[in-house]
Amino acid sequence: MFFSKRDIQFNLYEVLHSEALTQYPYFQDHNRESFDMVLDAAQQIAEKMLYPLLTQMDRKEPQLVDGKIRVHPGMKPIVKQFGQDGWINAGFSYDEGGQQLPATILNAAGFIFQTANYSASVFPFLTTGAANLIRSFGSKALIETFTPKMYSGEWQGTMALTEPNAGSSLSDITTLAEPTEQEGVYKLKGQKIFISCGDHDACDNVVHLMLAKIKGAPLGAKGISLFVVPQQRLDKDGELTPNDVITAGVYHKMGYKGAPIAHLMVGSNDDCEGYLVGEPHKGLGYMFQMMNEARIGVGLNAVSIGTAAYQASLAYAKERPQGRKISEKDPTKPQTNIINHADVKRMLLFQKAVTEGAFALLMYCSKLADIAHVAEGETKERAQLLLDLLTPIAKSYPSEMCCLSTSAAVQILGGAGYTTDFPVEQYYREARIHPIHEGTTAIHGLDLLGRKITIHQGKAAQIFFEEVRKTLAEALEISELKPLAEQLQKTLGKAQQVTAHLLGLAQKGEIEKYLSDATLYLELFGVITIGWQWLKQAIIAQQSLAQAHAADHDFYQGKVMTARYFYEYELVKADSLMKRLLSADQVTIDMQSEWF
Amino acid sequence: MFFSKRDIQFNLYEVLHSEALTQYPYFQDHNRESFDMVLDAAQQIAEKMLYPLLTQMDRKEPQLVDGKIRVHPGMKPIVKQFGQDGWINAGFSYDEGGQQLPATILNAAGFIFQTANYSASVFPFLTTGAANLIRSFGSKALIETFTPKMYSGEWQGTMALTEPNAGSSLSDITTLAEPTEQEGVYKLKGQKIFISCGDHDACDNVVHLMLAKIKGAPLGAKGISLFVVPQQRLDKDGELTPNDVITAGVYHKMGYKGAPIAHLMVGSNDDCEGYLVGEPHKGLGYMFQMMNEARIGVGLNAVSIGTAAYQASLAYAKERPQGRKISEKDPTKPQTNIINHADVKRMLLFQKAVTEGAFALLMYCSKLADIAHVAEGETKERAQLLLDLLTPIAKSYPSEMCCLSTSAAVQILGGAGYTTDFPVEQYYREARIHPIHEGTTAIHGLDLLGRKITIHQGKAAQIFFEEVRKTLAEALEISELKPLAEQLQKTLGKAQQVTAHLLGLAQKGEIEKYLSDATLYLELFGVITIGWQWLKQAIIAQQSLAQAHAADHDFYQGKVMTARYFYEYELVKADSLMKRLLSADQVTIDMQSEWF
Repeated sequence: MFFSKRDIQFNLYEVLHSEALTQYPYFQDHNRESFDMVLDAAQQIAEKMLYPLLTQMDRKEPQLVDGKIRVHPGMKPIVKQFGQDGWINAGFSYDEGGQQLPATILNAAGFIFQTANYSASVFPFLTTGAANLIRSFGSKALIETFTPKMYSGEWQGTMALTEPNAGSSLSDITTLAEPTEQEGVYKLKGQKIFISCGDHDACDNVVHLMLAKIKGAPLGAKGISLFVVPQQRLDKDGELTPNDVITAGVYHKMGYKGAPIAHLMVGSNDDCEGYLVGEPHKGLGYMFQMMNEARIGVGLNAVSIGTAAYQASLAYAKERPQGRKISEKDPTKPQTNIINHADVKRMLLFQKAVTEGAFALLMYCSKLADIAHVAEGETKERAQLLLDLLTPIAKSYPSEMCCLSTSAAVQILGGAGYTTDFPVEQYYREARIHPIHEGTTAIHGLDLLGRKITIHQGKAAQIFFEEVRKTLAEALEISELKPLAEQLQKTLGKAQQVTAHLLGLAQKGEIEKYLSDATLYLELFGVITIGWQWLKQAIIAQQSLAQAHAADHDFYQGKVMTARYFYEYELVKADSLMKRLLSADQVTIDMQSEWF
Repeated sequence: MFFSKRDIQFNLYEVLHSEALTQYPYFQDHNRESFDMVLDAAQQIAEKMLYPLLTQMDRKEPQLVDGKIRVHPGMKPIVKQFGQDGWINAGFSYDEGGQQLPATILNAAGFIFQTANYSASVFPFLTTGAANLIRSFGSKALIETFTPKMYSGEWQGTMALTEPNAGSSLSDITTLAEPTEQEGVYKLKGQKIFISCGDHDACDNVVHLMLAKIKGAPLGAKGISLFVVPQQRLDKDGELTPNDVITAGVYHKMGYKGAPIAHLMVGSNDDCEGYLVGEPHKGLGYMFQMMNEARIGVGLNAVSIGTAAYQASLAYAKERPQGRKISEKDPTKPQTNIINHADVKRMLLFQKAVTEGAFALLMYCSKLADIAHVAEGETKERAQLLLDLLTPIAKSYPSEMCCLSTSAAVQILGGAGYTTDFPVEQYYREARIHPIHEGTTAIHGLDLLGRKITIHQGKAAQIFFEEVRKTLAEALEISELKPLAEQLQKTLGKAQQVTAHLLGLAQKGEIEKYLSDATLYLELFGVITIGWQWLKQAIIAQQSLAQAHAADHDFYQGKVMTARYFYEYELVKADSLMKRLLSADQVTIDMQSEWF
């Protein structure tokens, strides 16, 4: 199996008590039973439709043929199934044909899909994100024209942001929108690159949520507007007709090969219509309101790949005989399975610690999103602030660490892991996209240290520290976990000093220095946050051990041991990071380009 | 360019004073001029023959067609050129048709080849290693029969060790050798897997240096013998005739695709002749005497890939405009090249620190090999002991770290780096083989902590500490470097405590615990060793700065800054590693397989 069902249940019901969400009116028709049915349905699709295509989609990449990107023929039934079963709008309201499912449950289901086949899972995930923008900020006409076909899976949705000279620096986009005589209708002209699912033949149409600048708009981020730009627009008779969005190319890439990534020429023949979403010049703001969702989605993508690799290497380690115990010198003794070597266990524990730690954080963030959505007053506000703060970590920690954890999976398989006979090399290649897309790790470091830590007079950070201290208080009462709690407490205290030191630089106007190691600060915050998540898990596991029967006993033991592993091998890295963050040497600023 | 010529010269002549090697009679015909001619010749081949095939060889993988592996057709002229120009036996004596070139120079030349095209460079490199075994331990008849065609590049050499059930645990090989009536001739039967260049059509024949067990041999490592097993043997008339070595398959793999890796069936028809090298049962010993060479070779392979990736990302960073300085909020200002962002400089410094630091170590080890080869008495002994100690680090540090440094190269290119439009994604894939082959990282950790640190009453370690302290003494006298020297001194002192602690466990018989974190110990030793190499480089650079003219001034500044970077960002990691290594918690031993 490519994921642990038990671990999902542990997070949903033992750690997060997700069934409590059904006390809110919006979720009141649900219960644990309906949640489990959703997860079982996801598992069915994952096992029967997605996993069987995992390798094939990697080998048979999308190709541009006669101006159209052809994807693996197996994608068409998959996209249809996602639409038919209501997965694309499952989180939306009944009014919108949705099922008002909590994000917590939907993300757990998405995780199951992604562990089976990351590339295939991207298609519906992108449509949901695009549709969400239209329904949140679009006019009634736009919603009625576009979302039903998106929900049904007939039309693909995309986010069309990046341009050749505007990637990390989105404010520099140059795609131009000129008003027409018809209100809300613009003529667009420009280029978009790296557009995931930007064109393919598994759907009938593609609906781009595209950033562009209305002629005469202010420079920079404040002049960006959001448009719906369909690949084919509807003519007067309601028939689809080409909208002058030409696919100039498909990217060939290291991994994630099953998903078609397009280079688009927009309005080359002056005949591309775009429909303004919301008000002019507010596009980036709209986009960012959806970003938490997309970024948690990317974190989940990363951790799902890491999870599948962990499971594959675990299965191999349990069956592969090689070598003997270090203290066993007798060559007549049979070889032992490699899972019995301490160093192999270390690599498995590393993967388990990273993937289950990050998954716990992502489920926690999903629940915060649900609470921010349906609660009110201070509860809502606290959830939203904490979610905002955690989002760069929830995106970046899994993205960075699953590159390393998939590497450990390859290492466990040895030479076999480097061949295409096993899936781990594919996971290693696929994992590498996540630190890049949906904001690079550096961008998230700047977001965390440059914005999230300070906004609202540091209220989000204050809530974070409060929540961690609650967990610490609980863990300090459990003798087995007291050493871990003390270690985290000490690290947290020092991290607050580091934060104060860095904010002090900002106050002194040393902006470059303040943010020069924002990536390291993000890493520090990540290791602390995941340490916190492991302590939360260890508390439940330790408390459940006494009454647990056999299989559950093993599961809980595994949780407690992995928490110990995380503190022994991962949380200690905070020391080195903080030493650097407190140093006065600004070598990366002082270094000059001609000295390289 | 895919490497820095200036950096090679810096290491060879300013740090290592390689020209001093010519004072030894064996190298007396050489001088700096002849060394430079060798390097220039290597650069010619690298630029004209190797680099142009880099991408093509990745795209057009070797295929097994009618029982023969077909490699890229461009390999045939390359292999021929290497033979014709005398590269394969250049380090051997004049008697053997060689040029008595120092390993230091040959490895620098090899580095140039490998930065251009790692897969292509493997072919001659393997032949050299195999021929070296024959000439060192084989009979006159074996030497005369096999080595001339290997030197000329007509016949490929391989190392045929691994079997389906014997990879890391070589003592478990089962390939059987039965004596025949002819002395020294055996019939072999078995399977070999993962044999690099084990079969291909760019040469006329393949000569395997194969490990097997003679019937009735002792169990385990002490029963392994070494054989020459040609793919085609010479019949009575001196004609090549098949020797019952059948190619059962070619491995398809993540990277390093240009090199054909074979699965071989040996003696399936009871007609495979093998010729015993040296004495029976001593094969593993012979193999290990050549291991230093092969392992330094793998370290160089890794660092060459890391270097090419560094150079590619450096060139990109200097030309790619994106974003503005953090303190610059005005969107009308033009974008700046990304090399001006502190975080991009950090990623470039990381790559420079890892690749140039590891290259310095590998050149240093090459010089130790030369001295161990040609010197006498204590000088020879010290060089050999130090080389033995450093070998696991020289193999593993570049192997592990160049996975990370190529990842940083991908990150600098962003989305572009993930596409096949740029070579960095290929470098990322190719780098991943090195922690696996020629002994996994775990095996090298056990070698370092379990053997090298303790053999000869710890004399090798003692020499190491003496050498580092010499460098420290020099650096403490240079005000700019004093803080670095103090940091290294402190780390070194604590590392000695860590070593004493671990050896104490061994003395108490706690063998499993003693070695359970050998991989982390290897990492610790690696970061200290490379810190030492950076201090050595910084001393020369700092002393040369005053009189240096423009380009050299930039070069030396870069060296000093990168040393600072290494200490600020990398050497600090020793703290976290030592904290773990001193911990009493044996979580990776306590963890049970059923708890995963």
